[in-house]
Amino acid sequence: MARFSFNQATATGWGLEELVAGCVAAGVPGVGLWREPVREYGVERAARLVREAGLAVTSLCRGGFFTADGWRDENLRAIEEAATLGTRELVLVSGGLPAGSRDVDAARDRVADAIGELVPHAEAAGVRLAIEPLHPMFCADRCVISTLGQALDIAERYDPGAVGVVVDTYHLWWDDTVFRQIARAGDRIAAFQVADWITPLPEGVLLGRALPGEGCIDMRRFRDAVDAAGYRGAIEVEVFHADLWARPGPEILAAAITAHLTHVA
Amino acid sequence: MARFSFNQATATGWGLEELVAGCVAAGVPGVGLWREPVREYGVERAARLVREAGLAVTSLCRGGFFTADGWRDENLRAIEEAATLGTRELVLVSGGLPAGSRDVDAARDRVADAIGELVPHAEAAGVRLAIEPLHPMFCADRCVISTLGQALDIAERYDPGAVGVVVDTYHLWWDDTVFRQIARAGDRIAAFQVADWITPLPEGVLLGRALPGEGCIDMRRFRDAVDAAGYRGAIEVEVFHADLWARPGPEILAAAITAHLTHVA
Repeated sequence: MARFSFNQATATGWGLEELVAGCVAAGVPGVGLWREPVREYGVERAARLVREAGLAVTSLCRGGFFTADGWRDENLRAIEEAATLGTRELVLVSGGLPAGSRDVDAARDRVADAIGELVPHAEAAGVRLAIEPLHPMFCADRCVISTLGQALDIAERYDPGAVGVVVDTYHLWWDDTVFRQIARAGDRIAAFQVADWITPLPEGVLLGRALPGEGCIDMRRFRDAVDAAGYRGAIEVEVFHADLWARPGPEILAAAITAHLTHVA
Repeated sequence: MARFSFNQATATGWGLEELVAGCVAAGVPGVGLWREPVREYGVERAARLVREAGLAVTSLCRGGFFTADGWRDENLRAIEEAATLGTRELVLVSGGLPAGSRDVDAARDRVADAIGELVPHAEAAGVRLAIEPLHPMFCADRCVISTLGQALDIAERYDPGAVGVVVDTYHLWWDDTVFRQIARAGDRIAAFQVADWITPLPEGVLLGRALPGEGCIDMRRFRDAVDAAGYRGAIEVEVFHADLWARPGPEILAAAITAHLTHVA
C-alpha cells in the first residue's frame, strides 16, 4: 500500500471530507486531487484537510487547455493551487484543436510555447509541470499531445525538476514505442496513473475506463518499466466509469485498493 | 474525378447493382468493395457486373483478423476473391487481441507471421496484401497495427509488389510521424482512403466518421504527401456514419463526390 494513491476522479460523487476520512480509515497514504472539486471546497481549506489527515497529495489535475482563452491566468492559478495543496506535480492536459482549425502542428507548437512561458512561474512556486499525453482518440477535442514521445520532446527542453511527464496506462498501452519512451523519461516521470482498457467504448469515450485487471493492459509490465526508469513515486488509480461512479465511495476505494494490490503492486 | 473511387461501405444500404449503375451515371471511375456484400451477390457475378460497367475495383476490404480461428482459409479465400474481382489491393485489418490476452506484442508478432504465410499465395494470385493501420482506439478489439510505421515495419520484409500499406486519413491524422512514414512508404502505398474526424465519437466508435471537409483533418496535406511519395492510385472516399447511411445511395454518392472535389482532389 505504500505507493497507492486514490485519484479523486475515480469517485466523483464522494465529497472531499468523506473521501479523506475514507482514505485514512483504509490506510491509504496519498490522494490525487482535481481542481474543480477542490476549489468548490476551498483550496486553503482542502489543503488543511488533507494535511491534518496526514495524506500526501500526489498530483493535481489539471492545468493545460492552452488553446482556450485565458489559458495563462488559468494555469498560473493552477500552479498556485498545486503549491497551496503541497503537491509538486501539476498535471497538464494540453487541449485539442482550436475550433475550426485543421492545423495540429500549430496546436502542438502552441502547447510547447505555453509550457515555456509557464516554466519560470512553476519553478518559483516549487511546482513541476507534468505533461500528460492522452490517447489519440482525444487529439481533436482534448489533448494534441498523443504520445509519451511527444510529451518528452517538449519536456526535455527544460530541467527535469521543472517539466515532467505523466505515464497513464490507459492512454499509452497501444503504443509500440512506449517502453522505450518510459526508459527515456527517467526522472521526468512525475506521475504514474493506472486504469484499464475495455470495449465497447461509450459515447464520447471519456467514461470507458476500468479498474486494473478488468481489461487488456499488462499493468505489471508498465509498473516494472516505470520502476526500472527510476520512478519511486505514487501509483494513482484513476478510473472514470459511470457504473463505478454510481457505487458508494468506500466501495469504490476498496475495489481500487484490491485492483492495485492484485494487478499493479 | 479521374482518381475518385467510391467505397461501398459509405452507402451500406445501396444494393450492388444500383451502386454500380449510380457510379456509372455519375461518371465515377472506380469502386472499393467489401467482401460480405460481394459474396452475398456472388463473387463471379459481381466481377462481371463491375467489369461490364467499366468500373475499376480499387480495393477489396478486407482480409486479416489473424487472431480468429480459421484465419488462414478465410484469407486464402479473400485473396481469391480479390483476384476474381480484378483488384490488386486486398486490404488487411489485422484483428485485435485474442480474448483474455494482455500481450499486444505477441498479437503483433502473430500478424507479421500470418502475413508471411500469405505472401506466396497472394503473389501467385497477382494480389497485393495491403496492411491497414487502424486508429489506436481500435487496438484492443479490431486491429493491433496502430501506426503506419508499424505497418511498414512488417511490409518492408517483402517485395513492394507483394505487401503494401493503406493510408487512411481517419486512422492516421493524429500521428506526428505520419508524413515521414508516408514518404517512407513510397510505392508500398496500396490504397489511399479519406474520411474526416468529428466529435463526439458515438458508442463503439465505429460509425463516427465524416465526409472530407466536415472535420478537423487537413485532407490536402495528406493528398499532397501521398502524391509526393509517388502514389498515383485511387482516392477512395470511405465514410461510416449512421446518418449518412440513412440517406439514399445517389445522395450519398453525390455528397462524397462534392467532398472529394472540394477538399481532396
